[in-house]
Amino acid sequence: MSSTYGTLFKISTFGESHCPGVGAVVDGVPPRLHITPELIQAQLDRRRPGQNKLGTQRNEADQVQILSGIENGISLGTPIALLVANKDQRPGDYSEMRNIPRPSHADFTYNMKYGINASSGGGRASARETIARVASGAVAEIFLHSKYNVEIVAWVSSVGEVDAPGVNIHNISRSEVDAHEVRCPDAASAARMVEQIEHVKSDKDSIGGVITCVCRNLPAGWGEPAFNRLEAALAQAMLSIPATKGFEIGSGFAGTRQRGSVHNDPFVQKDGRLGTVTNNSGGVQGGISNGETVYFRVGFKPTATIGHEQQSVKARSGCE
Amino acid sequence: MSSTYGTLFKISTFGESHCPGVGAVVDGVPPRLHITPELIQAQLDRRRPGQNKLGTQRNEADQVQILSGIENGISLGTPIALLVANKDQRPGDYSEMRNIPRPSHADFTYNMKYGINASSGGGRASARETIARVASGAVAEIFLHSKYNVEIVAWVSSVGEVDAPGVNIHNISRSEVDAHEVRCPDAASAARMVEQIEHVKSDKDSIGGVITCVCRNLPAGWGEPAFNRLEAALAQAMLSIPATKGFEIGSGFAGTRQRGSVHNDPFVQKDGRLGTVTNNSGGVQGGISNGETVYFRVGFKPTATIGHEQQSVKARSGCE
Amino acid sequence: MSSTYGTLFKISTFGESHCPGVGAVVDGVPPRLHITPELIQAQLDRRRPGQNKLGTQRNEADQVQILSGIENGISLGTPIALLVANKDQRPGDYSEMRNIPRPSHADFTYNMKYGINASSGGGRASARETIARVASGAVAEIFLHSKYNVEIVAWVSSVGEVDAPGVNIHNISRSEVDAHEVRCPDAASAARMVEQIEHVKSDKDSIGGVITCVCRNLPAGWGEPAFNRLEAALAQAMLSIPATKGFEIGSGFAGTRQRGSVHNDPFVQKDGRLGTVTNNSGGVQGGISNGETVYFRVGFKPTATIGHEQQSVKARSGCE
Amino acid sequence: MSSTYGTLFKISTFGESHCPGVGAVVDGVPPRLHITPELIQAQLDRRRPGQNKLGTQRNEADQVQILSGIENGISLGTPIALLVANKDQRPGDYSEMRNIPRPSHADFTYNMKYGINASSGGGRASARETIARVASGAVAEIFLHSKYNVEIVAWVSSVGEVDAPGVNIHNISRSEVDAHEVRCPDAASAARMVEQIEHVKSDKDSIGGVITCVCRNLPAGWGEPAFNRLEAALAQAMLSIPATKGFEIGSGFAGTRQRGSVHNDPFVQKDGRLGTVTNNSGGVQGGISNGETVYFRVGFKPTATIGHEQQSVKARSGCE
Repeated sequence: MSSTYGTLFKISTFGESHCPGVGAVVDGVPPRLHITPELIQAQLDRRRPGQNKLGTQRNEADQVQILSGIENGISLGTPIALLVANKDQRPGDYSEMRNIPRPSHADFTYNMKYGINASSGGGRASARETIARVASGAVAEIFLHSKYNVEIVAWVSSVGEVDAPGVNIHNISRSEVDAHEVRCPDAASAARMVEQIEHVKSDKDSIGGVITCVCRNLPAGWGEPAFNRLEAALAQAMLSIPATKGFEIGSGFAGTRQRGSVHNDPFVQKDGRLGTVTNNSGGVQGGISNGETVYFRVGFKPTATIGHEQQSVKARSGCE
Repeated sequence: MSSTYGTLFKISTFGESHCPGVGAVVDGVPPRLHITPELIQAQLDRRRPGQNKLGTQRNEADQVQILSGIENGISLGTPIALLVANKDQRPGDYSEMRNIPRPSHADFTYNMKYGINASSGGGRASARETIARVASGAVAEIFLHSKYNVEIVAWVSSVGEVDAPGVNIHNISRSEVDAHEVRCPDAASAARMVEQIEHVKSDKDSIGGVITCVCRNLPAGWGEPAFNRLEAALAQAMLSIPATKGFEIGSGFAGTRQRGSVHNDPFVQKDGRLGTVTNNSGGVQGGISNGETVYFRVGFKPTATIGHEQQSVKARSGCE
Repeated sequence: MSSTYGTLFKISTFGESHCPGVGAVVDGVPPRLHITPELIQAQLDRRRPGQNKLGTQRNEADQVQILSGIENGISLGTPIALLVANKDQRPGDYSEMRNIPRPSHADFTYNMKYGINASSGGGRASARETIARVASGAVAEIFLHSKYNVEIVAWVSSVGEVDAPGVNIHNISRSEVDAHEVRCPDAASAARMVEQIEHVKSDKDSIGGVITCVCRNLPAGWGEPAFNRLEAALAQAMLSIPATKGFEIGSGFAGTRQRGSVHNDPFVQKDGRLGTVTNNSGGVQGGISNGETVYFRVGFKPTATIGHEQQSVKARSGCE
Repeated sequence: MSSTYGTLFKISTFGESHCPGVGAVVDGVPPRLHITPELIQAQLDRRRPGQNKLGTQRNEADQVQILSGIENGISLGTPIALLVANKDQRPGDYSEMRNIPRPSHADFTYNMKYGINASSGGGRASARETIARVASGAVAEIFLHSKYNVEIVAWVSSVGEVDAPGVNIHNISRSEVDAHEVRCPDAASAARMVEQIEHVKSDKDSIGGVITCVCRNLPAGWGEPAFNRLEAALAQAMLSIPATKGFEIGSGFAGTRQRGSVHNDPFVQKDGRLGTVTNNSGGVQGGISNGETVYFRVGFKPTATIGHEQQSVKARSGCE
């Protein structure tokens, strides 16, 4: 279960911070899709830290290699294995640090579960694990876009107390998002976010934030009635990303304060299909997409790694 | 996938609003547990609508029957099938209503997905589906409590704009919750919630709310590093409940506005184990329980069924 | 895993010999199929012991009840729960017999695994468990037949040393099979089988046998390259039936003695599609159906229950 | 489903004949096991073709690389990714051969399923796919042996008409098997097998065979009552290997001709545990291991690749 996700389209990820590489086996990809390393690399480049002075100061030139499942740029229908080599592949010596678990990191819980920790870096809990998700997600997006014209755009909608309210979910594009270093397409808010981050960094501290994601052009009928409601699947996927603490779809927590007469989305005819006037549902009713735009927000806690001295305690023997 | 949940402990649910019954097959229950119909019925009785004048005005005397897997009050290790008969087992005639989908109900999306709807009631999207979850959950709780002394308590922490801030997650008990008809253990807030609900009902309207849930005594080490992080599994489970729009664990969305120096939970020695001073993590670090109390909030939109006239449109042929 | 089978079409079975009932939740059934209790009952009637003097002398009038997922004879796309009540629903007292495990029954291994046995009858290892498979299989067959015109016919092809070689896999029909009480459509062989069984019964003994099954009209392209090769999925399904000891597809074990030049199935044009001259492959190449008839044999050991005294040993405390 | 196998211990394999590499992600491996590339390589070396003049004349120096999950020879509990580079990584040009499907190869069925074939070699249907199984199996064996002292030995028990009856399943060892180039530990039979193979090769033909496998020291209690009976899981695993046509456990098809009084395995006390006098059950009763030796046979058809001209037909457009 741990590292495999999905039923028909299924990804199995692997990799720690300092092992030879991180990657994924992506199974269930339809045959005859046009997939190239460049198309996947484009997303890994968007992920890469060290692109500006605000984020983590590492330059990880993560180059993806396609090991199988694609020939001459065409998918074969067989598993696609993706590998990104780690630049620093030398696990360290087991050291004192591991016996003093870092607050709000995974050191302690991994030790309790496995009785062992990777000798250095975050091990499997490293943010490098998300490389496998980005590469796999790039493959998924190629399919969704080429077959259904699905468009997925996500951006930073708040950093600490700075919100970016003025983004139109109906036409915001990925290039507008990428135009700003904090990935917030609302220029005024973006400027305040930069200020906020620089201020926090100067205090050797970190700050949390929220991303908003929209998925346009989903056909009606995706999702399942019970345990795999579309919002349930999205919530699982999102909360499985390191540092996430919350998920809300459509009206979300704000919607809990509304009345049904306001919250219900009336049906109208739209371009020959049934659509809704408002979209408090966030594109999902009864767990199944209704053809409207799906949108949701995901909350990230502040990064646990900070420059401050922090209180911790020496664990007796590695796993106590 | 749709109606099966879990890997080792696995439930497969069934049932519409007006078919002979709703229920579940609960597989992976350890042998030699003491399980009786009464223990399961106690939770179904807590679920039952019509217990007070605030909720839905139906009196559903839902009696659970154990069909298999238990003999003389002892589990055999084999699948436990649970059945609750529906009182009204007559599906209606297909009628006009189904061609005019009700706003923010599942009529339209089920029709788009399946090309057919149950002839009356909510069908599989009916709240009666949750009977199977409550019955299965009662079995799960028997195991968790008898084996690990896990305590799970959930309560209504807001209704519309009325919040109930004063509940202590460390010692709140289920009986304190059940003592009030709105299942809010903060008496003053509960009184305001009743007022709020009655006001909304007099307007033939509905209102949303939030529940908070705490899980105490989870051992450290539960959950998985990647896709089955404990918070991801909880989020999926919670967002699979009808009418939910949001999930947050620990500090949640409020935590996104904090700094790392404030949000990080310092370690201390606690009764011979490593614990944390604060618990912004909500009992989970790196996707794995750390031995602290797990707590989370789930947002519910206002019920879609209201007494008002609403705007809708006749679909052409059932699935357009 | 234990009691759930399948990915998109998924069955979850339950039931012991003396609990209230046995049955299954059948999930993933397409909507708008015509399914009635009568169509399922017809297969349960074919399964029922006590239809003649040769088999087990019980008259189990197993009546299926559809609990959900079907309305007015039409499937809704939601889980279909099927229940067959047990006539004898009284579990016995725990008795001496369980401490002396019966040779080649499941008493001992269940005790080792679970530390408990059903108090009487075979419990979950009872042949009554196959009721759930027959009922679920009836639903599967309705789909396969109505959508793809797939025809499945199985018959007894040997009893002990008596073989029935003269059955034509290309046109044998289920009604021809059902015409004889031993379900062998080769009349001369069937007569010898009856003799064989009566002889063994007069010795208070039992005898094994083999069934052959053909599946006609499978389209090319079913099955998967690696772990879910069609033959692998069939082998798992067949070897999960109680008392089975062997499975072979196409040329089977006899084919291992052939040369490739004889065994290979040359391609020819057949009615506008590519077909093969011979069919040693049994309709499967590379794990995927090729459009030819799939056929396989399944071996059943002699029933463990015999009239003889047998050697056993008292286990010390139920699970040793 | 296709390329992932297992529930708690799970492998996801990838790789075609001429892509950069074949391998697997092995998830669910317990932490703190001693696992090195050398221990895995030892099994890959045993698999490697070209070790003698009898088999395929290729020298594939398949070197395994551990990409993740192991540090300093110790497993971390995280996914272990294994990679074996292909020496010939250049996919060919699409050529005539693919339009004329080779008899009893997977060319035709892959084309029907995917509408595309790897441009050269067997693609995903290549025997190189089994590299991933051998490497993953080596990891599984390390666990089974170090934790339970399970011993697994398999050998060639027939080639064409030549059987090797005189092998003692209770003490045959892997080194005895490896001592002979045909992997048959019965020297006289092995010599006749060599003769048989050389004779067939001189005819530019191929021949089938059977392997027998024994698993010793399995504790009682492994396996599940219904769909994951131990024999069902073994049958699926075995029939998922390319070229297999049959599986039998314990007495197998021969047992179907026996009487129950002969076939039943009487219980006796054995070294302080309950054991059986005979072992027609093959170590499994009711789908669950009983502590006796598990043994089974797997039939392989003759290799489809032969030196003869064979009949085939040009498919019209690649997938007809």
